[in-house]
Amino acid sequence: MRLMTFLFAILVASPVFADPLPSWNDTASKARIVAFVEDVTDPAAETFVPEEARIAVFDNDGTLWSEQPVYFQFLYAIDRLREKAEADPSILTSDVLRAAAAGDIRGAMAGGNEGLLDIVNVSHSGLSVDAFDTDVRAWLAAARHPTSGLPYTGMTYQPMLELLSYLRDEGFTTYIVSGGGVHFMRAFAADAYTIPPWQVIGSAGHTRYDVVNGEPILMKDPGIAFIDDGPGKPAGIDAKIGVRPIFVGGNSDGDFQMLEWATSGAGPRFGMIVHHTDADREFAYDRQSAVGRLDRALDEAEARDWLVVDMARDWSRVWSGQP
Amino acid sequence: MRLMTFLFAILVASPVFADPLPSWNDTASKARIVAFVEDVTDPAAETFVPEEARIAVFDNDGTLWSEQPVYFQFLYAIDRLREKAEADPSILTSDVLRAAAAGDIRGAMAGGNEGLLDIVNVSHSGLSVDAFDTDVRAWLAAARHPTSGLPYTGMTYQPMLELLSYLRDEGFTTYIVSGGGVHFMRAFAADAYTIPPWQVIGSAGHTRYDVVNGEPILMKDPGIAFIDDGPGKPAGIDAKIGVRPIFVGGNSDGDFQMLEWATSGAGPRFGMIVHHTDADREFAYDRQSAVGRLDRALDEAEARDWLVVDMARDWSRVWSGQP
Repeated sequence: MRLMTFLFAILVASPVFADPLPSWNDTASKARIVAFVEDVTDPAAETFVPEEARIAVFDNDGTLWSEQPVYFQFLYAIDRLREKAEADPSILTSDVLRAAAAGDIRGAMAGGNEGLLDIVNVSHSGLSVDAFDTDVRAWLAAARHPTSGLPYTGMTYQPMLELLSYLRDEGFTTYIVSGGGVHFMRAFAADAYTIPPWQVIGSAGHTRYDVVNGEPILMKDPGIAFIDDGPGKPAGIDAKIGVRPIFVGGNSDGDFQMLEWATSGAGPRFGMIVHHTDADREFAYDRQSAVGRLDRALDEAEARDWLVVDMARDWSRVWSGQP
Repeated sequence: MRLMTFLFAILVASPVFADPLPSWNDTASKARIVAFVEDVTDPAAETFVPEEARIAVFDNDGTLWSEQPVYFQFLYAIDRLREKAEADPSILTSDVLRAAAAGDIRGAMAGGNEGLLDIVNVSHSGLSVDAFDTDVRAWLAAARHPTSGLPYTGMTYQPMLELLSYLRDEGFTTYIVSGGGVHFMRAFAADAYTIPPWQVIGSAGHTRYDVVNGEPILMKDPGIAFIDDGPGKPAGIDAKIGVRPIFVGGNSDGDFQMLEWATSGAGPRFGMIVHHTDADREFAYDRQSAVGRLDRALDEAEARDWLVVDMARDWSRVWSGQP
């Protein structure tokens, strides 16, 4: 009897029997993910993929953490712009910049993507990469989301954190490939997602090497060097990874080309779209949303065999910071 | 007696006692490298560096393989330009391009760096990343160096291959950070250096995502997006790795800023310059060379505590392809 108890304890504690995705409901979505991972990791299966080719890439905003009412980096940009403008009001050279510095999000967004880039541009330049990293970390530690009241890193999705861990445990390398700024995302990716700086691919400004008082420094200069969105995502993956991923997670039409490219390759492929269907626990939006618009990818998901994750149906828990 | 023989055989075969750098002579250079590696890998030492921070970066041309009489990628560009021009002579729009297509290296180099970029630009665009990779591999398999007669991948430096392996065995991650094109270097880096595509940082043109007849494709467009040389090297490392390396190997003034940045960080740091002093076995050049000019970095090496490797003195063997 004692031996049986002991053996049972081993079975229960064994990772083989533990559920790697406890915040996923037992729906077809979860079953499909698990079946894919088993297919590519079974050395005896025809669908086996060696570890070095198990590349998984994930969008960040709306896929790994929330993005409403607007990208969190934009809220950081507004806070930083306000501080900068207090010291030097002459930097506010447009209506959009003045609205942003006044905390008027609607007015700041009236300039469309161009205005948004302008705000990021002015607020994210003129300091070193190290100083920027320190500033983002301090902001994330103090800032709270306007409606949830949670720290932003508490609004990462618990089911997605489990998926990242599960994939890594099964020999995948996990990357972020997102429209967010690479320096902004690196400031929390290691702690929030266990994703190191060299596995973060994002939009980028110009970085300039300089030596100031004998100290080498990397300065963030104005200007946009690369926008990691839409067709830029496959190009960014090629530039930094050089291998076509076999697993892609996204949530908007900005992920369309990355999904298309990755799932068109030979062998087993997995495309996944997080569909924001949960107005009670998170937000509900898709085709009409200015932020994270999901339209074409939703239309074509079935024909392309991409899994559409229904947040309300498939997830038993949403935010990591809310027990 | 038998037991002693057996134990002795184990000791000799044991990696602890095997020389990890057999093609390095027993000079002060080798001792300095080994001492540094022991310092940062000894968990009990104050100088210990955890594995995730053991980032080592190496220039390629002149540091991992030869670069005379001119960068090997340039010889590839000329061969490819000639082929392209046979099909469509109208692409030869300048004297430099015409000289290059005629195989006149001196005339092709007369345009300086600008002419060189022009040649790379015209010869490296208008095909997909995959097709380019296939083409480079075919060229490397067939082409022979004009003076050594060796295949170009036979002109990698055996002592440097051993250093790369040694560092990886000791928990380092090894990267290439070189002025060469990222797609060109990836075509041989895995086989020649055991360095995967995502650890190759280089210069890059514009890559455009397209869908042709339903097939997603990455096209190499004309234009230079990034030059990974001089101050571009620290910027490239920041963009792709996001961590300051602790070990840098270079051979020219184009590596100066990378050496300066990496060796200015806190904790143990190692900067190393391969000095081409061996006219008998390789080439002898430094301050006056148009390719791989080493001047300022040589002047400042001692004050900055960078190791200058004297190829003639420190290496018992040079090329990997020559036994």
